[in-house]
Amino acid sequence: MKDKTFLMIPGPTPVPESVMLEIAKHPIGHRSSEFSSVLSEVYENLKYVFQTKNDVFLYTSSGTGAMCAALENLINPGDKVLCLSIGNFGNRWAKIAQSRGAEVEKIEVEPGKVIEPEVLRKRLENDKNKEIKIITLTHSETSTGAANDVKALCSIIREHGAVSVVDGVTSVCAMPCKPDEWGIDVLISGSQKGFMIPPGLAFLTASERAWKVYEQCKYPSFYFDWGAYKKSTQANSTPFTPAVNLIVGLNTALKMIKEEGIDNVNARHKRYALALRAAIRALNLKLLVEDDKNASYAITSILPPEGISVPDIRKILKQDYDIVVANGQNQLKDKIFRMGTLGFVCERDLIAAVGALEAALLKLGHVFTPGNGVTTLIAELNK
Amino acid sequence: MKDKTFLMIPGPTPVPESVMLEIAKHPIGHRSSEFSSVLSEVYENLKYVFQTKNDVFLYTSSGTGAMCAALENLINPGDKVLCLSIGNFGNRWAKIAQSRGAEVEKIEVEPGKVIEPEVLRKRLENDKNKEIKIITLTHSETSTGAANDVKALCSIIREHGAVSVVDGVTSVCAMPCKPDEWGIDVLISGSQKGFMIPPGLAFLTASERAWKVYEQCKYPSFYFDWGAYKKSTQANSTPFTPAVNLIVGLNTALKMIKEEGIDNVNARHKRYALALRAAIRALNLKLLVEDDKNASYAITSILPPEGISVPDIRKILKQDYDIVVANGQNQLKDKIFRMGTLGFVCERDLIAAVGALEAALLKLGHVFTPGNGVTTLIAELNK
Repeated sequence: MKDKTFLMIPGPTPVPESVMLEIAKHPIGHRSSEFSSVLSEVYENLKYVFQTKNDVFLYTSSGTGAMCAALENLINPGDKVLCLSIGNFGNRWAKIAQSRGAEVEKIEVEPGKVIEPEVLRKRLENDKNKEIKIITLTHSETSTGAANDVKALCSIIREHGAVSVVDGVTSVCAMPCKPDEWGIDVLISGSQKGFMIPPGLAFLTASERAWKVYEQCKYPSFYFDWGAYKKSTQANSTPFTPAVNLIVGLNTALKMIKEEGIDNVNARHKRYALALRAAIRALNLKLLVEDDKNASYAITSILPPEGISVPDIRKILKQDYDIVVANGQNQLKDKIFRMGTLGFVCERDLIAAVGALEAALLKLGHVFTPGNGVTTLIAELNK
Repeated sequence: MKDKTFLMIPGPTPVPESVMLEIAKHPIGHRSSEFSSVLSEVYENLKYVFQTKNDVFLYTSSGTGAMCAALENLINPGDKVLCLSIGNFGNRWAKIAQSRGAEVEKIEVEPGKVIEPEVLRKRLENDKNKEIKIITLTHSETSTGAANDVKALCSIIREHGAVSVVDGVTSVCAMPCKPDEWGIDVLISGSQKGFMIPPGLAFLTASERAWKVYEQCKYPSFYFDWGAYKKSTQANSTPFTPAVNLIVGLNTALKMIKEEGIDNVNARHKRYALALRAAIRALNLKLLVEDDKNASYAITSILPPEGISVPDIRKILKQDYDIVVANGQNQLKDKIFRMGTLGFVCERDLIAAVGALEAALLKLGHVFTPGNGVTTLIAELNK
């Protein structure tokens, strides 16, 4: 049987049929009043989902494009940037900062761990001359499934005075993320994650404090220029021809999110992730992120049992059940597999996935009580 | 009646149903072997359409993104860049170069005119010390419908030794454009034009000479970095999560172009544009680009008759016939209207458009022999 693949990777994530049907419509003119009406709704609802009073810019790009849109509008060569890295995407901030000539310092932790607020507080206390201008961090680290306490970290950064730049690619929608309330200066995200649409769009919102740093940026990015985007966004337009079809789909997806309510969407992701984590433990498997309080609600990283390989688990899930889970990245390749529970996922999907994982593990000779995963999952979901 | 809009703007252009149905499929994983096979075909067919042996990079961005991808991988602050501008998109090259700190010199002409090769030759003869490092030009200028003789201009640039950077956004597919044969160093284009797919993808190909300049670029763009794209392209992959759905659609569109044959596709666009130009003249209307030899085969800019306004013509075409034609941009607003004949356009579409234009002009009181436009069009198409 074909065409029945279910993606449980951290993105692309499942897309609702109603969204796909919108995307399938013939593109309309990007300078038409019809498209301007679509943008007007999209911009309003993006503010709602991002829980901010500031504009949210809509870029036609990958999520990495929005990361560039953040740093390339802030950094001048020689600026000191502190990158708090808990995985590959934390390291990507550092690479982008370096690509603009910044002087980069990294605080790194081992995979699965998070940045302890006290570690950041001590580092910033030592920055007597306020040399650090920008601090990058990751909310939900897609490569490990760990999640930083962004609220605590950004509060410390606000006290210091640097500008905080947060990767919310897999956190926005999946976890509470409140830029205005928490003092996040720049927050970015991507479409193929909690937003339930295919890849190709990315988002950015910036605080007034960030805008002051932008104004000092000597060579802001042309394609991602905040100034041009601000002007267009406020006119329900875009500076350049955008991915019209994806935006029409986004409009439908945002309405679905608004109807469910962003707090309910966040709570659903939390319930799913914690239930999945309990089910994994009930199968005698270990989680890369041991403590629930450090866990992303978007991605769960699982260690294979001793003697059983990640490729074998992934292969059986794909061949027998047409479920795609992700391998680890870089040094975590074949050390973990990652299950995404992000976006358009329902309880039935989780039951199917945990049941299929049980079947794969049984086939591979792992020792556990069959049924324990699914029953634990259901019990936790109903708590 | 709804849902019957026909776009005759310079982009987005009409998209075949078979392409839209591909785009409507659920996204597949961008790191799957299935998607890698799609990319393998796409990369091969992009080389065919671009008529180059070099890699063609596939960016998730607007066409302007590819313009940035060109200059942001070449320019260091202080570099001297000569911008040959015949309209808005020629000016955009200058703005992007300035955004990277280049010292920009412009050669400009009035709207509808092109750069005479002799003008360029003289300017470059005066550049005794070879200070000019990069020269930007536009093949088909979307804002006016004029087309430069890229072959002649690039040959002069090659003699001088600067790197030529060509905007082929509305020319690739619509007009012969041969980077390897003509010595174009960097050529870019966009998806919502001759490629017959919705906006959101852009393309770039670079010569060996351009790569040498890239190697000297101190802060190449991270998102558009040629080095990262080269590595990924050669591995049938992409550096970042791309617009999967649009790429799957592109694969179908490229196969359609290949089946027709790129020379035939070019010839079709030429035949259509010249027939439309003859029909416009037969309606006693004036063309902004007077001489056929300077005309783009993608866009035709038409002056309204005296006493009749561009908004009125556009309004009747939209209201009575659901045909969208573009207004002029900036200083050409309400001075011209532009008809796109780019991509998935057939003879029937042209007959309908010219017939509808006749009807609109009659309604507005323009004096011409009714039927002259359509009969001239058909006669020219059958020549």
